Amino acid sequence: MYRTHTCGELRLSDKGKKVCLAGWVQKSRKLGGMTFIDLRDRYGITQLVVRADAAPELASVAEKLGREFVIQARGEVLERESKNPKLPTGDIEIQLESINILNRSVTPPFTIEENSDGGEEIRARYRYLDLRRPPLQRALALRHRLAQEVRNYLDAQGFMEIETPYLIKSTPEGARDFVVPSRMNPGQFYALPQSPQTFKQLLMVAGYDRYFQIVRCFRDEDLRADRQPEFTQIDCEMSFVEQEDVLNTFEGMMRQMFHNALGVDIANPIPRMDWYTAMDRYGSDKPDIRFGMEIHDITSLVKGCGFSVFDSSEYIGAIAVEGCGEYTRKQLDELTDWVKRPQVGAKGLVYIKIAHDGSIKSSVDKFYTAEQLQELVKTCEAKAGDLVLVLCGAKRKTQTQLGVLRIEMGNRLGLRDPKVFAPLWIVDFPLLEWSEEDQRFYAMHHPFTAPKPEHEALFYSDRKEDLEKVCANAYDFVLNGTELGGGSIRIHDAAMQSRMFDVLGISKEDAEYKFGFIINAFKFGAPPHGGLAFGFDRVCALFGGQETIRDYIAFPKNNQGRDVMIDSPSLIDQVQMDELCLKSTAGDKK
Amino acid sequence: MYRTHTCGELRLSDKGKKVCLAGWVQKSRKLGGMTFIDLRDRYGITQLVVRADAAPELASVAEKLGREFVIQARGEVLERESKNPKLPTGDIEIQLESINILNRSVTPPFTIEENSDGGEEIRARYRYLDLRRPPLQRALALRHRLAQEVRNYLDAQGFMEIETPYLIKSTPEGARDFVVPSRMNPGQFYALPQSPQTFKQLLMVAGYDRYFQIVRCFRDEDLRADRQPEFTQIDCEMSFVEQEDVLNTFEGMMRQMFHNALGVDIANPIPRMDWYTAMDRYGSDKPDIRFGMEIHDITSLVKGCGFSVFDSSEYIGAIAVEGCGEYTRKQLDELTDWVKRPQVGAKGLVYIKIAHDGSIKSSVDKFYTAEQLQELVKTCEAKAGDLVLVLCGAKRKTQTQLGVLRIEMGNRLGLRDPKVFAPLWIVDFPLLEWSEEDQRFYAMHHPFTAPKPEHEALFYSDRKEDLEKVCANAYDFVLNGTELGGGSIRIHDAAMQSRMFDVLGISKEDAEYKFGFIINAFKFGAPPHGGLAFGFDRVCALFGGQETIRDYIAFPKNNQGRDVMIDSPSLIDQVQMDELCLKSTAGDKK
Repeated sequence: MYRTHTCGELRLSDKGKKVCLAGWVQKSRKLGGMTFIDLRDRYGITQLVVRADAAPELASVAEKLGREFVIQARGEVLERESKNPKLPTGDIEIQLESINILNRSVTPPFTIEENSDGGEEIRARYRYLDLRRPPLQRALALRHRLAQEVRNYLDAQGFMEIETPYLIKSTPEGARDFVVPSRMNPGQFYALPQSPQTFKQLLMVAGYDRYFQIVRCFRDEDLRADRQPEFTQIDCEMSFVEQEDVLNTFEGMMRQMFHNALGVDIANPIPRMDWYTAMDRYGSDKPDIRFGMEIHDITSLVKGCGFSVFDSSEYIGAIAVEGCGEYTRKQLDELTDWVKRPQVGAKGLVYIKIAHDGSIKSSVDKFYTAEQLQELVKTCEAKAGDLVLVLCGAKRKTQTQLGVLRIEMGNRLGLRDPKVFAPLWIVDFPLLEWSEEDQRFYAMHHPFTAPKPEHEALFYSDRKEDLEKVCANAYDFVLNGTELGGGSIRIHDAAMQSRMFDVLGISKEDAEYKFGFIINAFKFGAPPHGGLAFGFDRVCALFGGQETIRDYIAFPKNNQGRDVMIDSPSLIDQVQMDELCLKSTAGDKK
Repeated sequence: MYRTHTCGELRLSDKGKKVCLAGWVQKSRKLGGMTFIDLRDRYGITQLVVRADAAPELASVAEKLGREFVIQARGEVLERESKNPKLPTGDIEIQLESINILNRSVTPPFTIEENSDGGEEIRARYRYLDLRRPPLQRALALRHRLAQEVRNYLDAQGFMEIETPYLIKSTPEGARDFVVPSRMNPGQFYALPQSPQTFKQLLMVAGYDRYFQIVRCFRDEDLRADRQPEFTQIDCEMSFVEQEDVLNTFEGMMRQMFHNALGVDIANPIPRMDWYTAMDRYGSDKPDIRFGMEIHDITSLVKGCGFSVFDSSEYIGAIAVEGCGEYTRKQLDELTDWVKRPQVGAKGLVYIKIAHDGSIKSSVDKFYTAEQLQELVKTCEAKAGDLVLVLCGAKRKTQTQLGVLRIEMGNRLGLRDPKVFAPLWIVDFPLLEWSEEDQRFYAMHHPFTAPKPEHEALFYSDRKEDLEKVCANAYDFVLNGTELGGGSIRIHDAAMQSRMFDVLGISKEDAEYKFGFIINAFKFGAPPHGGLAFGFDRVCALFGGQETIRDYIAFPKNNQGRDVMIDSPSLIDQVQMDELCLKSTAGDKK
């Protein structure tokens, strides 16, 4: 070992010890003939001192140390005169007897500190230097800790981690697969898994009872902000369980992760909300319940009073924004523009300002009596000093817009503290979604999701209205307005599966072609089973109090799917192309 | 939950309890009006009984149960009259009150028992059924346990598991990469990692100090027996360490894995052997030290005595095979044929039989006196009743052949008990290997492996003989004749790295092109570091007492790289090919 201690380890109780540290020079400064060096490693920072009366060789080495030099330093632990209460090692310093330069460093292209002066692009190019910064070290340490907690919890619960293959088969449904040409089987391709869904269900058929895996998944999608072509899932499946068992098991996991990794005790039990309530009250299937500002249906109050915009709307809804009753015309105009942006898509915004004296002023004064407006304000649970914002249109669409507006106002008012954790289960999703365009039902989750047992009769009904009412045994885990995971109880009964294909308009031949392999496996005694998967990158980010996942992935890709550090993807040579029996048409004229 | 207990859980102390079990029908038989059902799940087997006087509905359901039906069964725990001491649940049975058929099964294509009647191919096709068999369930349970032990040990030692990317860059050296066409970057490809070597070294540059990962790796090689195109590594790297630190750390890991997973305490410390000794005494860089039968150099004893085959050989070596002194002519002919097979490649075999009365008979009697043969026998440490086998030729080649012969004789004599574990570190590998063909040196491990500190002077010598003597700071972990892992201390000094490229005849431009990316990172203060990787599939197999890895992988591929269960790889559709700007030339005439 090049060291006796790490740079985060020594305390006043070590005073007088002869020690040897190794690490990176964070900074070095001369002060009254002495040289002070901050030595850094993953564990912390320790101050090294070269005294004014030190041996000339030592002094001259100390003077020449540059930022990020790697050194090994020997000396004695002394009590510091001016202590630094911000550092765990701040009570001591090492009076040096020798310095051994293990490696030099050219000047790094940006500062390696809590907040760097480097732009995003240069930091991505030199990711290995950015990764030296404390926020990223903390992020990856948290990720490691969370992975350990997941494994220890699930292991204790009798789950087995079973590795499923990465070179699998391209499937004709779902998102686009990444594919891998097979040299040994010319013209044929493997696909990288979008999730181990099929394999985990097969493991249930194989009797493994409780499976999990922290596993990489791949999706060749056009990348939206904060999506990665490869991402990590906590993937789980259980046999002989009902929805309640799955929810309890993973509620326990989340509780332990919060407790052990963050020292936070989350709500017990975690609240549950059915999908319809979430949509009606929060305009979202992943509501942020850290704050109220719920959506109120005011359709019956304001429709049919002569205001044609409302009169022609299926639905009119409102939120009461606390303490914004004094918004200026300019602020309201800006907000109107904001909701009209294509990302939100509202046609306009109606407001009702309630002054501190209780007087009401609105953009629709002329259509409604004071009493009507008072009634509206009361329905929205608004009080003096608040601002009521109203949107209208088709029901679910308008609720969704109100949900987005609600989150925006929550952000503006600082109601979304990343250190507050408000988990929530969303349950009772609709099983089916009617597509007006295709005039058919689609599975909201996937075609293997089971209807709720109490809705089975509806599921076998021939009426569209009945089928629309069928709820699934499906659930999402939501934290602070972000969906962290979800799953379902699967269909294990052949007759029910066949009914599902009928409802989805999938012919027997088509089902066989698309899902034949798993349907066949299910003939050999499939147990009742269900499971879920969590997006691990996002779990880490949210636990860390961040919204973006990039800092929680050691080597992420950019929005073009490129790793700019290693400059990948890249061209491969002709020999390799020939071996794979492939020709690129990238340069060809279309 | 569909059950109150698992099928492996109930004991005599549970007598009188009302329980509910769920699982698969292993078998069902009628006996004197009663029906006995063996119900199986991952946890064990429990006997269910339907009494002769049971309700007719229950009796009729029980009679109709087929193999692998999935049922839920309620009843009372009774003490068994005829106990089964082979089963942990063998003292009890459940007297049934109800059976609920959860799912039926068509007849499985082979028996799902400890030893199946199904051939390899059909079991691979129905892998999910083969996975129900106890040996495979034990194999995957062991794998899970070992992975947990690795993580718990390394976590406790301050290692962080950090996930490295799977979509990386194709490298121009080493084995063949699997590649992944990029749709967003037409004509360009990612590569799947053969190992995270570069990334783990970058993590050391980034200051992560102690990294590990249980990670999938990919190699597009023509598959030898028992190789998989995707395999799993325990990949580790440490900073500020010397070889001794790495060996001690992972010796501790192996010790804990053996102790906690198998209840076996392996040698402490694990013996170490330098590469030269291993080659000289065992004819292998991965010797099986569970048995002796060491190789003896008898060159000086037998060369130059008129036997032209020996006289023209660089080296003559021998092993003494215990208790085989009475081998017949036929047995010796068969053994001679065996060493002459191309897989061994010897030109012939000389034998010396020592009868129980001590008399000696050999195939070279006419060239040597009785005293000379006695001397030879003594050198080989053979005794009455033993057989000495002699091979000759070029030194290392002959030693290797003797090594293969030694393992074969060990197998024939039953000296290789899979329940005995003899770990070993091989150290002091030569750094460089001279290629007569290319008239240049190659790195024995890889070009980033550091020479031993005490051999640095030799490393900077210009004489080929000196360079051949340089030993590397490289090490392999060997268990029972199988290499389970290996690694090295890496070069972290730019001047030494540059010297290495010189020695290997790699020009500055070439080095920049091939390794530029990591060389550049090393300019920013790379710490001294080193690490190793274990082949996890093989670790699991050997811990399980098996030589083949296939049973320790949930969904393995066959020797053609195919997954016959999902029938992959497969053709993809034209749309996907077009999106990737690819054309297959597989059907084209050459």
